[in-house]
Amino acid sequence: MTIDTFFTSNESAMQYECNFSCDNAIFFKNNAESYFITDSRYTLEAKSATSHIKNINIVESSDLVKDFIKIAKKAKEITFDPLNLNVESYNKIKDELSLKAEPNFHQKKRILKTKQEIELIAKSQELNKKAFKKFAKYLNKMALEKQPLDKLDELFLHFKARRFLEYSGKYSISFNPILALNANAAKPHALPTKEILKKDDLVLFDAGIKYKGYCSDMTRIGFFGETFNFDKSQRFPKKIQKIYDIVLKAQENAIKNIRVGMSAKEVDNLTRNVIQKAGYGKFFTHSTGHGVGLDIHELPRISPNSETIIEDNMVFSIEPGIYLPNEFGIRIEDLVVIQNGRAKVI
Amino acid sequence: MTIDTFFTSNESAMQYECNFSCDNAIFFKNNAESYFITDSRYTLEAKSATSHIKNINIVESSDLVKDFIKIAKKAKEITFDPLNLNVESYNKIKDELSLKAEPNFHQKKRILKTKQEIELIAKSQELNKKAFKKFAKYLNKMALEKQPLDKLDELFLHFKARRFLEYSGKYSISFNPILALNANAAKPHALPTKEILKKDDLVLFDAGIKYKGYCSDMTRIGFFGETFNFDKSQRFPKKIQKIYDIVLKAQENAIKNIRVGMSAKEVDNLTRNVIQKAGYGKFFTHSTGHGVGLDIHELPRISPNSETIIEDNMVFSIEPGIYLPNEFGIRIEDLVVIQNGRAKVI
Repeated sequence: MTIDTFFTSNESAMQYECNFSCDNAIFFKNNAESYFITDSRYTLEAKSATSHIKNINIVESSDLVKDFIKIAKKAKEITFDPLNLNVESYNKIKDELSLKAEPNFHQKKRILKTKQEIELIAKSQELNKKAFKKFAKYLNKMALEKQPLDKLDELFLHFKARRFLEYSGKYSISFNPILALNANAAKPHALPTKEILKKDDLVLFDAGIKYKGYCSDMTRIGFFGETFNFDKSQRFPKKIQKIYDIVLKAQENAIKNIRVGMSAKEVDNLTRNVIQKAGYGKFFTHSTGHGVGLDIHELPRISPNSETIIEDNMVFSIEPGIYLPNEFGIRIEDLVVIQNGRAKVI
Repeated sequence: MTIDTFFTSNESAMQYECNFSCDNAIFFKNNAESYFITDSRYTLEAKSATSHIKNINIVESSDLVKDFIKIAKKAKEITFDPLNLNVESYNKIKDELSLKAEPNFHQKKRILKTKQEIELIAKSQELNKKAFKKFAKYLNKMALEKQPLDKLDELFLHFKARRFLEYSGKYSISFNPILALNANAAKPHALPTKEILKKDDLVLFDAGIKYKGYCSDMTRIGFFGETFNFDKSQRFPKKIQKIYDIVLKAQENAIKNIRVGMSAKEVDNLTRNVIQKAGYGKFFTHSTGHGVGLDIHELPRISPNSETIIEDNMVFSIEPGIYLPNEFGIRIEDLVVIQNGRAKVI
């Protein structure tokens, strides 16, 4: 599906189209010609970032919608994403222009990654893994020192972890990381609390950075015992180990058996089946994964009802989990790229 | 204006109504009864955060819009914010429910702050000022040490500044701060670059934190000479000083002369007039200010076309600026609360 005439205010879509984005702009593409309509705060940067692009017009505007209508008046069938347009703007535009609603059209355009995009996501994940290593090293030092841990609550550890991810300002993060101890890890999107790290705690860390606009995403769980690491192979107390091993087996089963031509729901089932068979199906409360690119969550969705057919050059996460309320939660997440018909961890 | 029946997915509105918010929920209020409809990732936290609230129902849902329609079916005239609802959801809802569009209805509800809210914003700004002090102290140390500054580019300084704002994880920030040197400060919303700090540089810093959900916001400019500070009284080279003094005079003129009963555009004019008379009108390219509360930008807008009447208990920024492209930019920003008919800096 090639769409030649569309408009968007989505930052990832704008970034993809013209190497610049901001929180107040309309990007309009009309075949070979494109327009970046924004207010005076952003025009200088927009001009400089897009200077290498042909046929792009930076339009300074104090009323984006009004100026967009003027510019787009003559265009035929302008595609837009109804998930990304508010009712107020839509009502101003709908009688003036010839519109066609196409949910997620720009994510669909980006669902197969180019070689360069795959390299950027892989590099992003490589840097992300380095941050996990540094954070684990810090926690290992804390474990070995056997000092009082009274300052190390989730809030502080979250703060500390972000430092490693942002690494002296070189990288921005792709989402606010999740740092959760024990029972808090049973909330898949836990916010950090004042709970203080103790010996024998379970530490869940879900984080990613942005490298040249491209996101990474990974989840690991460590055990704060005599030492600490975020390796995939872990030694937990018996009950946790049992659940951990089920989740790991579910993840490995998916990574090993994904094939081009499967539907995304079949991929979802590769993790879900293992967890269900082990009797924990109802504690796996979310989808198996999501696409990753300029957005941290994009297509394909790897969920029980997604009919998307898996193709080479898709990049997505495989992140099964089991969440036992008020006890603990386990999630293990990696990114895979589909190449030569199979999944390769990046 | 009291609205008894409405729905929203805006995080600040949800926070205000029920002390909890997340990125995938619909809050529906139907007179005395309210509903927080969200997916399984958030239900545990939602229940615990709202446990003190009467007549609130936490509804776990895998299709928020569908379940909202079921629950709201019998309600009469449900207000919604067309600026905060996407076309896709609207199309699903519009024929099923009795809707009334009211742009910014929830920001309007929050435009007059309670005593407690004013205290929280003031505390937020007090902590923000402490971060500015710490950052200035750090820069002063760098100035005094006369060490090579080759690591101190905008990206690193931005990273460093965020550390002071976030202060060991105690606070989150209200927006991604702006740290801009010299010509980069001529972009009102500059992104940090690899430009390295040098002696005699102008350093613009625009930042705020969140304290118990409430935002702060301040902009200061310092001169990286023999010493460094973010005081309002500064000594710059002649041309910069001239512009700085005009902007400061504009800001002081507004703060001194704001009165209850004025329109917001009259307040805007209190800064704009001074800058125009000095001959720099066309370089003041944005509005004078914006309301601050749970959102970093909320009502009232202090702009040349805002008819909003100023009342006691409004809180907003006064932040005139002059931006000379490719040279430098000056902006000075404080928050004021309207009390006893006049503006008081907080």
